Amino acid sequence: MASSDQLKQHTISLSVENHFGTLNRIAGLFAAKGYNIDSLTVGETEDAAISRMTIVTRGDDQIIEQILKQLNKLIDTIKVVDLTDEAFVDRELALVKVQCTPLTRMEIMQISEIFRTKVVDVSAKTLTIEATGSQLKVDAIINMLKPFGIKELARTGRVAIKREFQSESQ
Amino acid sequence: MASSDQLKQHTISLSVENHFGTLNRIAGLFAAKGYNIDSLTVGETEDAAISRMTIVTRGDDQIIEQILKQLNKLIDTIKVVDLTDEAFVDRELALVKVQCTPLTRMEIMQISEIFRTKVVDVSAKTLTIEATGSQLKVDAIINMLKPFGIKELARTGRVAIKREFQSESQ
Repeated sequence: MASSDQLKQHTISLSVENHFGTLNRIAGLFAAKGYNIDSLTVGETEDAAISRMTIVTRGDDQIIEQILKQLNKLIDTIKVVDLTDEAFVDRELALVKVQCTPLTRMEIMQISEIFRTKVVDVSAKTLTIEATGSQLKVDAIINMLKPFGIKELARTGRVAIKREFQSESQ
Repeated sequence: MASSDQLKQHTISLSVENHFGTLNRIAGLFAAKGYNIDSLTVGETEDAAISRMTIVTRGDDQIIEQILKQLNKLIDTIKVVDLTDEAFVDRELALVKVQCTPLTRMEIMQISEIFRTKVVDVSAKTLTIEATGSQLKVDAIINMLKPFGIKELARTGRVAIKREFQSESQ
């Protein structure tokens, strides 16, 4: 949808009880509104019974508001926060498998060093690089590697956590 | 479910067309079998029309086989690979917000240094740390930080990519 590019990106953080079917119900709320999920991560928290999700989506503020209300009503939901208008730290991780030859390997390793990424696998014809940072940084690294030929790419999508720096009176 | 701990962990990599509702349909297949998803990541690939998912689940080999077949039948699915019995590189990223005092801050920063993690946010009462590595490494870091009091934890879940090292004749 071309129009979705003009819509505001929302980063939603969710704490949910770790039941089977929870993810299905949550993804269903977005699908019912015709909203695409740009990225979604689900991981365990310090309490194994509770998962934390970070969902990145684009949409009209009013409809996002409706989705947040519906998320709040799900029995599995413990807490929903729309981080969009708050100060937050966001990071993602990507594994990028790049084609290489004996000639280009050194060049790729130099790019990797400049961006402080790690080489995690090497073969005669490929290098696999682990990159972390904001979405913008990960995009920049991928763009630098594209000309060599990307064989495989796996991105985690965004995790985000509210900044404390501004919210405390010290 | 206590019995699920004895079941083999499967790491499934999926390439799918980036339609809305895709995630919903995929999560639905697991929910229909009563299978919990330990972690799930969805991110864009080098082609914005295609997303790549990594799903970690535990289950009986035969039922996982059925789920793989059903995943293959979905119209959105481009490729499904069960990496479980292959050599693969896996990584995840976690943001950990830890409580601190002027006295414990130095100690937490030392732990962070030993594990080569990064401090991404600081306030009078908290430190936020970015940790990356295998699931085991991220678990170890979180365990070291637990005694200080974890205020918030956001994990991406696993991304995985097949190793090339063993699969090429050189």
